[in-house]
Amino acid sequence: MKLASRTETRKKTVIELDDVKIGGNKPTIMAGPCAVESREQVMETAKAVRAAGATILRGGAYKPRTSPYSFQGLGEEGLQYLAEARKETGLKIVTEMMGLEQMEPVMEYTDIIQIGARNMQNYPLLSAIGELDKPVMLKRGMSATIREWLLAAEYIMEAGNHQVILCERGIRTFSEKTRNTLDLSSIPLVKELSHLPVIADPSHGTGMKKLVAPMSKAAIACGADGLILEVHPNPEEALSDGPQSLEPGEFSDLMQELSLIDSSLGSSGDKILPSAI
Amino acid sequence: MKLASRTETRKKTVIELDDVKIGGNKPTIMAGPCAVESREQVMETAKAVRAAGATILRGGAYKPRTSPYSFQGLGEEGLQYLAEARKETGLKIVTEMMGLEQMEPVMEYTDIIQIGARNMQNYPLLSAIGELDKPVMLKRGMSATIREWLLAAEYIMEAGNHQVILCERGIRTFSEKTRNTLDLSSIPLVKELSHLPVIADPSHGTGMKKLVAPMSKAAIACGADGLILEVHPNPEEALSDGPQSLEPGEFSDLMQELSLIDSSLGSSGDKILPSAI
Amino acid sequence: MKLASRTETRKKTVIELDDVKIGGNKPTIMAGPCAVESREQVMETAKAVRAAGATILRGGAYKPRTSPYSFQGLGEEGLQYLAEARKETGLKIVTEMMGLEQMEPVMEYTDIIQIGARNMQNYPLLSAIGELDKPVMLKRGMSATIREWLLAAEYIMEAGNHQVILCERGIRTFSEKTRNTLDLSSIPLVKELSHLPVIADPSHGTGMKKLVAPMSKAAIACGADGLILEVHPNPEEALSDGPQSLEPGEFSDLMQELSLIDSSLGSSGDKILPSAI
Amino acid sequence: MKLASRTETRKKTVIELDDVKIGGNKPTIMAGPCAVESREQVMETAKAVRAAGATILRGGAYKPRTSPYSFQGLGEEGLQYLAEARKETGLKIVTEMMGLEQMEPVMEYTDIIQIGARNMQNYPLLSAIGELDKPVMLKRGMSATIREWLLAAEYIMEAGNHQVILCERGIRTFSEKTRNTLDLSSIPLVKELSHLPVIADPSHGTGMKKLVAPMSKAAIACGADGLILEVHPNPEEALSDGPQSLEPGEFSDLMQELSLIDSSLGSSGDKILPSAI
Repeated sequence: MKLASRTETRKKTVIELDDVKIGGNKPTIMAGPCAVESREQVMETAKAVRAAGATILRGGAYKPRTSPYSFQGLGEEGLQYLAEARKETGLKIVTEMMGLEQMEPVMEYTDIIQIGARNMQNYPLLSAIGELDKPVMLKRGMSATIREWLLAAEYIMEAGNHQVILCERGIRTFSEKTRNTLDLSSIPLVKELSHLPVIADPSHGTGMKKLVAPMSKAAIACGADGLILEVHPNPEEALSDGPQSLEPGEFSDLMQELSLIDSSLGSSGDKILPSAI
Repeated sequence: MKLASRTETRKKTVIELDDVKIGGNKPTIMAGPCAVESREQVMETAKAVRAAGATILRGGAYKPRTSPYSFQGLGEEGLQYLAEARKETGLKIVTEMMGLEQMEPVMEYTDIIQIGARNMQNYPLLSAIGELDKPVMLKRGMSATIREWLLAAEYIMEAGNHQVILCERGIRTFSEKTRNTLDLSSIPLVKELSHLPVIADPSHGTGMKKLVAPMSKAAIACGADGLILEVHPNPEEALSDGPQSLEPGEFSDLMQELSLIDSSLGSSGDKILPSAI
Repeated sequence: MKLASRTETRKKTVIELDDVKIGGNKPTIMAGPCAVESREQVMETAKAVRAAGATILRGGAYKPRTSPYSFQGLGEEGLQYLAEARKETGLKIVTEMMGLEQMEPVMEYTDIIQIGARNMQNYPLLSAIGELDKPVMLKRGMSATIREWLLAAEYIMEAGNHQVILCERGIRTFSEKTRNTLDLSSIPLVKELSHLPVIADPSHGTGMKKLVAPMSKAAIACGADGLILEVHPNPEEALSDGPQSLEPGEFSDLMQELSLIDSSLGSSGDKILPSAI
Repeated sequence: MKLASRTETRKKTVIELDDVKIGGNKPTIMAGPCAVESREQVMETAKAVRAAGATILRGGAYKPRTSPYSFQGLGEEGLQYLAEARKETGLKIVTEMMGLEQMEPVMEYTDIIQIGARNMQNYPLLSAIGELDKPVMLKRGMSATIREWLLAAEYIMEAGNHQVILCERGIRTFSEKTRNTLDLSSIPLVKELSHLPVIADPSHGTGMKKLVAPMSKAAIACGADGLILEVHPNPEEALSDGPQSLEPGEFSDLMQELSLIDSSLGSSGDKILPSAI
């Protein structure tokens, strides 16, 4: 590891999209539905998360589903709805690119390219995205070690794109009740080893709505630069990930709690210094 | 699960040892060395953690070591040092009982009996301790599911002892850098399922001193009723677990940060209601 | 590791119980019900497995069950039935001792003491059993590394008892269909590192009757010194582990297949030499 | 799961490449270097594995390496060497396609397309390969469940290509000594659930040369339709995976042992019937 390493450059990387910063002094909140399902669903969710304080809208137009018979996303139509919501609310957009054949539409509409957990070691994709000039959010693979995750970022950076955001989304363990095990220790550990910003995804990390709020608070408390959260106006009817989606009112309550925790943290997060881990 | 289940009794269990409460409105901090090594070491650590705000002193007199050739603990002599430190500082004591043959000395000296991760499914030990009248801290087994952990508590309670404190200490995963993976999601999950108090052990959960502070803050933020932390006056010379032990000054700094986070949480932790998980 | 290590003594350990050998030239088959349920059940099973070629009868009188409300075994009554079956069939007996309070009855009736997976790191129990003069079968803990397993054997040997048989019984992984993941690579690996005999438990290792036969064959093919298999005259009515128990006829068929595989192996298993793993 | 399921079609799938069959009555052996390094290396290895009885030559021209700074493979030049070796020896070729941009050269030279573990859930790649008319070997993802693996095959089949070979290559666990944990139980389990052939990769599955032979024998004993093995004329100088590569002489010895085991199995493997797992 060279470019992603904290020993390479002491200055923490801050990704800037106009006035939205990732890796700065305040946690950045990305929120929205798992999958874009309709114009109304996206617009309603976008307005709600904007009002509650989110600055980035998430939503999948191309969905990597375990079964080929599950809903695969609206494709470019979904991207257009996201763009409309951006125009209406001023939110930035993060959405997943699953392969190079989706590069043109995704590049046209998104502000941040998401690389999903299943593609963390899709090296041709990483290298190709490394040639683009747009921030990338790189999710940790389902059973990726910290070293493998940082070296995946290195593939992107080595190709020229240094705007990488890391995202802890839970690892696969023997856990019988949660969808994954959210490995929050990866957050302070990555911050020791790298200058890249790192955020947490408690929605996929737990798979259970009731655990999203406590784990969001925990993520901020241990130094996450932000969160990505699933919010749906009607989780029971969501085409994917309903059980882990917050309703807008729950999201709004959580944002207030997070604000209090963040204020209590002071600048303690900056005291961490490089070490020889 | 009957007795440990949240559906059995709606009232949260609060363990009381004179003025020390576990499971009440404030997080309870247990701190001290991994192993009792000498009278001076225990006394110095006890005074330091007392001054910083801990209310319970931890320290092992009987140590379950992976190798039979490693330091096995001072035995009853170690218990006596802990008792001296209690007399001097007013701290309560928690220490491990590895087997029934240690029951007499441990019962004479300790305030809380610790059942270690390796013994979480030592059912004869659990049942025997269930007949005692002293609080028990039950660590989660290295690869125990939530259900197995709560059923281990059930063994103790079914035998008559309802004063059980659960302790999340990290699970075994593929992690290559941390000693274990601290599964903080178990904390809000256990609180959904059970009325028992649950604390976190970020020292064993991470095995890395630099991760102890951020993960302690995260544990409190997601609702832990307390923490158990390893503190040693001279970690480099510790006979066990030096790399994960805080120095007294570091512990004191952490206590101040934790206090700020806890204040920011308000009473939100109590809003969690039983569900059909 | 000193006493269990292959570098300590080049000669492979062979445990002898009259004419029954474990660790010799032929695989040793232990078979019988998970739990002793009645005199008839034990006797019927014993005769059937004897006729099919097993030389050791397994059966639990003291059962470590996840829930305190599950069937806990017949206790000493169960041991007596095992002894009756031994008298009738000439089979040796292996049964679990969960704690020291069971030492007297277990020592009176059994030929091999079983230490279960949950007790693999119950060090006081290991040390106490190390003072006895009876072979011990030490199951691998649910998430024990090879090093931890061999060091658990070392606890027994260091206390004086060198008659240790290791048993691979599956490890805990993310597997969603099998009860555990039978780690057969542990068998040749342990044989590289240690002179102790090692057997496999495909019944617990898979938890699925249909997988028991193929995994038994695989275990023998990779060098296991034997197998321990669950056989029940009526698996549907078993009080525990029915889904993984073979019927006597299935067991008999399997024994014939195993015989053919074993013959095909020649003496290749002995060619493995010590190395610096 | 529809197309990959055993309930869909009772007849076992047999892949035929001229006179080479995968999924037939005899195990098929694929062998060769991890990475193609030079014309001489490939030719020497091809001749040796051919002489010992292999029918398919493996070798990577495009290598998915954890670090962008590691040797990435010879690319099309490597494919040409493989084709030369095929011409010389009559061996069929299996090699990895990491992304669609490699489709043209890989399709020109290979007989079987390999999808690596890191790409098991690269759905655009799976769907695109599903439109090709060439057999595909789909490796199990590092932490893929059986269901996820079979559904990945379903992506290929749903797009039209039914010639899928599954390959168990070890899963990620806490194992501290082996590179992965070879989950041999997946082989009989997949055969219960699917009509597709399934082979094992003991080289990646263990990462240790000394474990390759015993685990190869175990794989055949539990019903694998074949093996893929790393063989290198000079493992110490291999550019990748040297520690798990066999020398030609070792491979030849192993082939003889495998032949004896396979003969001892009879037709027992065919007796497995569909069930409702």
